[in-house]
Amino acid sequence: MTDQNAGMSAGTRQVRVGCEFRYFAEIPTPAVFQVQPSGAPPATVLRQSWDGPAEIARHDYIDMYGNICQRLTLPAGESTLRYDALVTVPDATEDVDLDAAEVPAASLPDEVLVYTMPSRYVLPDVLGDEAWRLFGNEKPGYRRVQAICDHVNGHLRFQYGSSSPTTTAAEAYAAGTGVCRDFAHVAISFCRALSIPTRYAFGYLPDMDVPPDPAPMDFAAWMEVYLDGRWWTFDPRNNRARKGRVLIGRGRDAVDVAMVTTYGGPMLRGMEVWAEEPS
Amino acid sequence: MTDQNAGMSAGTRQVRVGCEFRYFAEIPTPAVFQVQPSGAPPATVLRQSWDGPAEIARHDYIDMYGNICQRLTLPAGESTLRYDALVTVPDATEDVDLDAAEVPAASLPDEVLVYTMPSRYVLPDVLGDEAWRLFGNEKPGYRRVQAICDHVNGHLRFQYGSSSPTTTAAEAYAAGTGVCRDFAHVAISFCRALSIPTRYAFGYLPDMDVPPDPAPMDFAAWMEVYLDGRWWTFDPRNNRARKGRVLIGRGRDAVDVAMVTTYGGPMLRGMEVWAEEPS
Amino acid sequence: MTDQNAGMSAGTRQVRVGCEFRYFAEIPTPAVFQVQPSGAPPATVLRQSWDGPAEIARHDYIDMYGNICQRLTLPAGESTLRYDALVTVPDATEDVDLDAAEVPAASLPDEVLVYTMPSRYVLPDVLGDEAWRLFGNEKPGYRRVQAICDHVNGHLRFQYGSSSPTTTAAEAYAAGTGVCRDFAHVAISFCRALSIPTRYAFGYLPDMDVPPDPAPMDFAAWMEVYLDGRWWTFDPRNNRARKGRVLIGRGRDAVDVAMVTTYGGPMLRGMEVWAEEPS
Amino acid sequence: MTDQNAGMSAGTRQVRVGCEFRYFAEIPTPAVFQVQPSGAPPATVLRQSWDGPAEIARHDYIDMYGNICQRLTLPAGESTLRYDALVTVPDATEDVDLDAAEVPAASLPDEVLVYTMPSRYVLPDVLGDEAWRLFGNEKPGYRRVQAICDHVNGHLRFQYGSSSPTTTAAEAYAAGTGVCRDFAHVAISFCRALSIPTRYAFGYLPDMDVPPDPAPMDFAAWMEVYLDGRWWTFDPRNNRARKGRVLIGRGRDAVDVAMVTTYGGPMLRGMEVWAEEPS
Repeated sequence: MTDQNAGMSAGTRQVRVGCEFRYFAEIPTPAVFQVQPSGAPPATVLRQSWDGPAEIARHDYIDMYGNICQRLTLPAGESTLRYDALVTVPDATEDVDLDAAEVPAASLPDEVLVYTMPSRYVLPDVLGDEAWRLFGNEKPGYRRVQAICDHVNGHLRFQYGSSSPTTTAAEAYAAGTGVCRDFAHVAISFCRALSIPTRYAFGYLPDMDVPPDPAPMDFAAWMEVYLDGRWWTFDPRNNRARKGRVLIGRGRDAVDVAMVTTYGGPMLRGMEVWAEEPS
Repeated sequence: MTDQNAGMSAGTRQVRVGCEFRYFAEIPTPAVFQVQPSGAPPATVLRQSWDGPAEIARHDYIDMYGNICQRLTLPAGESTLRYDALVTVPDATEDVDLDAAEVPAASLPDEVLVYTMPSRYVLPDVLGDEAWRLFGNEKPGYRRVQAICDHVNGHLRFQYGSSSPTTTAAEAYAAGTGVCRDFAHVAISFCRALSIPTRYAFGYLPDMDVPPDPAPMDFAAWMEVYLDGRWWTFDPRNNRARKGRVLIGRGRDAVDVAMVTTYGGPMLRGMEVWAEEPS
Repeated sequence: MTDQNAGMSAGTRQVRVGCEFRYFAEIPTPAVFQVQPSGAPPATVLRQSWDGPAEIARHDYIDMYGNICQRLTLPAGESTLRYDALVTVPDATEDVDLDAAEVPAASLPDEVLVYTMPSRYVLPDVLGDEAWRLFGNEKPGYRRVQAICDHVNGHLRFQYGSSSPTTTAAEAYAAGTGVCRDFAHVAISFCRALSIPTRYAFGYLPDMDVPPDPAPMDFAAWMEVYLDGRWWTFDPRNNRARKGRVLIGRGRDAVDVAMVTTYGGPMLRGMEVWAEEPS
Repeated sequence: MTDQNAGMSAGTRQVRVGCEFRYFAEIPTPAVFQVQPSGAPPATVLRQSWDGPAEIARHDYIDMYGNICQRLTLPAGESTLRYDALVTVPDATEDVDLDAAEVPAASLPDEVLVYTMPSRYVLPDVLGDEAWRLFGNEKPGYRRVQAICDHVNGHLRFQYGSSSPTTTAAEAYAAGTGVCRDFAHVAISFCRALSIPTRYAFGYLPDMDVPPDPAPMDFAAWMEVYLDGRWWTFDPRNNRARKGRVLIGRGRDAVDVAMVTTYGGPMLRGMEVWAEEPS
């Protein structure tokens, strides 16, 4: 259910989010971008703009998960695409309810069942024994999901470049390293192994009222878990409730919400991401 | 099928579109707006912005037709909402193919059948005899649809205020007057009566390379007709192929693409719409 | 939410439902049938069969409301189509909760908003003043919807042949007569006028543990109302909670769930409907 | 597009399809079955029946791919579920067009793009170099897809038990063995690596007008490839155009169309599948 007033009582703040990509393509190269905020509550987009070569005819479409995707063709040669948005977010930390219960499989809504299944990067089938060994005796519910996040956050060491576009949750877990999408893929695998519907979420995460992350700003990946009849945000990488999350999209895993998919082999010569309060 | 390159050869031009609404509401009033370009080809949105009271938490959702809707709550008291966008459109007149054939009912794709049925304002059941009397002997295809547009364009006299939110196609046809949505509803009724799938389209229509319309700028309504395996634009009100159409959304009729739907009785104190080439 | 166990505790009974249509068509005539149970809980289809001319190539598709539709082409000449199914239903009367609350418009889920809008036969815009006059002072919630049903059930006199395929809720209400679909259309109009999401439902209704209806068996129309986060069944025609309802489909109104839609003018020479416990 | 008359000229034949599962469950176990024909053309279901313990409350739902799924709860103890259907199929071999062209990525419809992406078992990213090495110089189009099928059919040796529920296309390809789903996963991986949209298909495949397969009857997996604006059937396992295919469902890979998914660990004590012309 959607409550227009949710998060309003605490007031709002503004965040500027966006990204810039510099490409070199030998030939015109079709691509799909997923960088625009989804429009889902509680964030509100006030202004947004795209800048790029004049000859780019971009159009939007809605994928099977309800995400807005931008489809375009990169021109031959150098090109720079820049997306920038000003967004209003609640000045409130996201919901936590340690007592939220798991929904028994027989009572799950039909449409969430897909989020209990394996996918390209999320391998509840492979990591199932480990999931049951570690979390099978935990009391079902929010606290068990939190225990999964705690374990993944402790087990994986964050390291840029430690994983590749083909790295699965099982591989990241075995290697003990990963980037935020690997943290998410591993934790989602554990949840799904326990029949807890869990989806992958992707977006912008500003450093609002938290110590600044020394790493260069990047897109963020987290997860949403179905408990007690609704979806809850968990972030195995940062492992704390946050303010200011701006969702781009959701899906089974990173395949479904990829910042860029190209049909051909353009070179990505540079990329910048921002998510911060306007000064 | 979607061709990224469609309409590109002729170059592009920019159009500024938008609208402003001034409301007075006794109490906070939920509302749904449909004023943003849909993102469908061939228009490309470069920049867009919303301005309004800071306390408005707006979110987007996708309706059952794939349209993007903005949901928000008008605050108590006076409020002004303003939406403004800069859009790129092809510098080319929209497609015409006088030889495009009707698709026999047995061969229509399943998902277009709904556009042969009656709806709130579109009454092929009531106007069916008239449709068959006037157009039953025409050769099926694009030319027959054009004949319908010619007839409606000649039969209805455009007159602001001549119709109300409850005016059906049958009532407008009988009265002989209407605004652009009535022109569309009547022509769609005739098409559907002949089992030609036809949907209602709503958006911005700049005066590009046509004599300026002396009437104050407003939103525009037209229709899309399924012939020869794709949708074609027809405009019974203006009855000529145009440049620069910027689609907001599509549906069965004006119920499905309403610029504003409010849950309560706010007063609309003023409204302005624009669609023009930046000077 | 879907609970596999809902209605199980009370045990189950079997119902046989089905229909037979006899047509005469001058030429092969495309048609869409909506007569199969939807598969939605709590009914379970055990067996089903279609009988008809061997040359009929039928296929199923899912419409925009999730209903299963059967598409086929009636052959030239006489043809008889027969659908028969054996269904298990709970031996329990459908849910009633006099205290179920209305959901404020601002908190309605996005996807139910469409069920507050007018449609072909449901005219909350036209019947809005009457709705507010009669029910505006009732306490919002289940009891107000029940008051609407009581009023419609008392105001309309059931009479076969009193309405036609073009009869709207406003016309039926003014005439004071109707068949079950008119009862539903009028009550739905009143609910929607009060911003209560309400959808049209269509299916089979056996006389289970109620006095037998002396009228010949026919398809039944009722409505589902969104209160307290879920949909509740109301039946303005029979105006009592029942056992054994077997849903075929749901939509905005009778346009969306029509037992048969034909593209052409075949003659319906006979029709029979059944819904009864096997002896 | 759907043509009711497709395949009709050649006449029709009947096929009986179905399956039986014998389970032992310690506790009531939720499950999803996908064994009913999809209702898609050209097959037509005449009769179907489910048999199982009386206490099973089954309901249907439509997944995100449009497949019909049956959801139920296996009772504690032994249970036998049996599904049986009589289906009409065209007496015609499925379409082949050696000249059907690939659609350039920029012109692919939005909704088919998902079928160019990796998924749980289909790894175009891992098998991409091999795909380009083997098929990169082939002329794009139907013949290239056929070359992929020929290669996969020759490279993989069919062997029951050679793969497990976690076997990916890359693993099957490396092992050189597999069952029909592995054949499909490998060939789909190669197609997607070349940006040819390809989906996994699952259903019944009778031995119609082909030498009988000595192997025990089982469900069949094949693939559908998007060429020239429509989907074409290819079967890397049998590698010939067939008659009588009865589709159950489609998806990205075997995750999306699994004959049974259980939430818990019931023992499958026996399974039988049939697909044959009635004697």
